[in-house]
Amino acid sequence: MKKIAVILSGCGVFDGAEIHESTLLLLAIKRAGCSYTVFAPDKEQSEVINHCSGKQENEKRNILVEASRIARKGAQPLNRLNPENFDAIVLPGGFGVAKNLCDFAYKGENYTVIPEIESVLTKACKLKKPIGATCIAPILFAKIFKGSKITLGDVNEASIAAEKNGAFHVVTTHGETVVDEKYKLVTTPCYMLDADIVQIAEGTDNLITEILKLI
Amino acid sequence: MKKIAVILSGCGVFDGAEIHESTLLLLAIKRAGCSYTVFAPDKEQSEVINHCSGKQENEKRNILVEASRIARKGAQPLNRLNPENFDAIVLPGGFGVAKNLCDFAYKGENYTVIPEIESVLTKACKLKKPIGATCIAPILFAKIFKGSKITLGDVNEASIAAEKNGAFHVVTTHGETVVDEKYKLVTTPCYMLDADIVQIAEGTDNLITEILKLI
Repeated sequence: MKKIAVILSGCGVFDGAEIHESTLLLLAIKRAGCSYTVFAPDKEQSEVINHCSGKQENEKRNILVEASRIARKGAQPLNRLNPENFDAIVLPGGFGVAKNLCDFAYKGENYTVIPEIESVLTKACKLKKPIGATCIAPILFAKIFKGSKITLGDVNEASIAAEKNGAFHVVTTHGETVVDEKYKLVTTPCYMLDADIVQIAEGTDNLITEILKLI
Repeated sequence: MKKIAVILSGCGVFDGAEIHESTLLLLAIKRAGCSYTVFAPDKEQSEVINHCSGKQENEKRNILVEASRIARKGAQPLNRLNPENFDAIVLPGGFGVAKNLCDFAYKGENYTVIPEIESVLTKACKLKKPIGATCIAPILFAKIFKGSKITLGDVNEASIAAEKNGAFHVVTTHGETVVDEKYKLVTTPCYMLDADIVQIAEGTDNLITEILKLI
């Protein structure tokens, strides 16, 4: 059975991991006959956003603790993720990627990726493990893997920033995947586009199919 | 297009709506060509549970605000749910049902359902609108609809309490549904059993299929 590590950035589209993408990635992994283990950084979220009002709350939440809401059985701290023990890694989107795993939401094209993510993805790549990302999460690849081919949906602020950082951006529509054979990266736009949940499921299913081909 | 109201009890299995069941119900609804609107009570959660440690936190969260993490676009306050405007209502499980929508988690068989839920489900039933529930959520039906036929999976503390309250409990396994033709109720066990996410998707798909037959 292939083992896939899923890295979450919290729980909720505006300050954490996007819940539909995260859940549907877990479903796609299990449906493909693989197992999953959920990981997340054991550190404070950059922000807590009220998902009714869209406003920032004066509150603190831990990324790992919130990610465990999606994992159900307790997510593992990201520093325990050894890519040698997994066949692939996938990262769903949500603003948590742009706020907690890197600082793209605050610094635009001059963003940096947190060391824990850079280290684990670099190591996975060296071990030839495929890495998948949905929605905004491919922005991490643009910074870490020089000249990588990725999609962030349409041309947008994120795709322009990715290209300024040396990535080659491919415009895609719902459910389409972009495969970078060199780095073994698979990306799909999901909620970077104005999508419904059926289109998200199509994207996450297709992403896992491509990941399995690369293992 | 059939319109389905989804009532959530928060966001996260131990103090709110179970995330996989909630997300997969939304997916099943959209895949069936229907639309959904998410509702939740605009009141404080009974508890906030740390989903890593399982322990209660000294923290306050609002059910509606947290449910909006699953809804993405802002859930609606439950008191705005008029069953006349929908073809059916569905409720995913999670301890939020047993802690926020009723007090089964604290009072066992002597539980009571919060007035907002009792009122909206009673009204929906009078209007012959089908109502679906997964996991622990059918416990609400046991109290509201006298002699209703429901499933809570295996025989367990909840099924015994449901029967003591006059319900007729049917033992089921993964993905199976129980239909009460009189009250137009559909129930399926989901995470009341030791299930994986693929089995949850089977249950939510089957539940929506049965709901559509009853509309």
